[in-house]
Amino acid sequence: MTTNQLIDQIHKKQSFLCIGLDVDLNKIPKHLLEEEDPIFAFNKAIIDATHHLCVAYKPNTAFYEAYGIKGWQALAKTIDYLNSNHPDIFTVADAKRGDIGNTSTMYAKAFFEDLGFDSVTVAPYMGKDSVEPFLAFKDKHTILLALTSNQGAFDFQTKSIDGLELYKHVLETSKAWNNSENLMYVVGATKAEYLADIRQIIPNSFLLVPGVGAQGGNLQEVCKYGMNDAVGLLINSSRGIIYASQEADFAEAAAKKAEALQIQMEAELKRF
Amino acid sequence: MTTNQLIDQIHKKQSFLCIGLDVDLNKIPKHLLEEEDPIFAFNKAIIDATHHLCVAYKPNTAFYEAYGIKGWQALAKTIDYLNSNHPDIFTVADAKRGDIGNTSTMYAKAFFEDLGFDSVTVAPYMGKDSVEPFLAFKDKHTILLALTSNQGAFDFQTKSIDGLELYKHVLETSKAWNNSENLMYVVGATKAEYLADIRQIIPNSFLLVPGVGAQGGNLQEVCKYGMNDAVGLLINSSRGIIYASQEADFAEAAAKKAEALQIQMEAELKRF
Repeated sequence: MTTNQLIDQIHKKQSFLCIGLDVDLNKIPKHLLEEEDPIFAFNKAIIDATHHLCVAYKPNTAFYEAYGIKGWQALAKTIDYLNSNHPDIFTVADAKRGDIGNTSTMYAKAFFEDLGFDSVTVAPYMGKDSVEPFLAFKDKHTILLALTSNQGAFDFQTKSIDGLELYKHVLETSKAWNNSENLMYVVGATKAEYLADIRQIIPNSFLLVPGVGAQGGNLQEVCKYGMNDAVGLLINSSRGIIYASQEADFAEAAAKKAEALQIQMEAELKRF
Repeated sequence: MTTNQLIDQIHKKQSFLCIGLDVDLNKIPKHLLEEEDPIFAFNKAIIDATHHLCVAYKPNTAFYEAYGIKGWQALAKTIDYLNSNHPDIFTVADAKRGDIGNTSTMYAKAFFEDLGFDSVTVAPYMGKDSVEPFLAFKDKHTILLALTSNQGAFDFQTKSIDGLELYKHVLETSKAWNNSENLMYVVGATKAEYLADIRQIIPNSFLLVPGVGAQGGNLQEVCKYGMNDAVGLLINSSRGIIYASQEADFAEAAAKKAEALQIQMEAELKRF
């Protein structure tokens, strides 16, 4: 999917919501455990109930890998279901990968070609030659970790290098990489006030913003500081939506939570 | 496997060689492509021919993920084969994972419990709460990226924060984390001269050293600056060993390359 197609979807649906599909078998409704593939059954129900309210889904690969082969199969079935039934949805593999050049190419093939995701999250620690192999894929997007939503973000990301914090070095440096137009960035909603500075460095890039909801981030603050002329935001909510209920009504409950966010987003888009 | 058991194996085999199982179907002997599981067939042959010459194997997960479900199955079969037939071998999942706390726990379960690896490589960018969930597993080892062997290491890792390079901050900071006795570190052999400084900060930790061979690192230099009283080194070679021949004799050719390194290591252990 191209960036312009994503922007079109945002305006059409009046939503820039990304729903995180972080499926934990201990948290899904008990009756689904009798299904042949409980993880996929859960995802399918959530997607069927919410796809008109969001523009993106983001499975975090950790939750699938933890279940081994069955988990990886459920991930493949989920992305196939999305690509077959909802080609208008932007898909994010939240994998936080990154390795030396030839190895990053293998990861890029895994997520872009074998599984068929539109984008993948990538860690910046190993630098340019660990990220550029992902950027080489046309109409695919590489979402680089900049400032994450966890407490550990303050261990290294906000440390100052020649007067500029590490995460700002990541933003600044990555702009010069080959095919940098395929870059988006992860910026945590728990640090919304940082978004004003971030927009000085990367005014045009899309930001994937986790941390609204369960982690305490505020949607209005994120929009105030982070929205640009092309919206430029994908706001993710995972647990706050998919675990709204653990009963038979879990999909409807998820849709209600997603709709509440979509309505807030519609208001922000109108204001803007 | 405990660290002491690893050290015992090093002395017993007179080797601190780790063999990287980075299987690319375009590079393995053509006749193996007729096997039901070519990746596993290749790994099994390499392991059978080299297990007495090395103390560790390190599959890089990218090469398995690139082949989807079949790749993941081959990875599981490889680690099962090692754990069943060679329990004296230290196993490394070179996965370079890392995510917010609850998600890192899922990755730790995937590699330590579901697959059954002794260790996993982890990226430090997201800080303490992204790494500690891995450290909580008893007799399992978390190998933190410090200074990698690629050119991109100079983009961020060697940048100075208050007079100390980022990778040294990673070493220094991580020493204070819970269960830090379960930490090892990745330090590239292409930067052997850095090892003297590194040993000032972490005199006792094991270092996993990639980059000998194909990437140009020098074994003697690494030992000179990096060896400690408990050896403290695992030196990895991947392509230089496993792709020594693409013909029917590939496993014997790999064993010859592994033996050449083992002999050099034996000399270093005697000198030390």
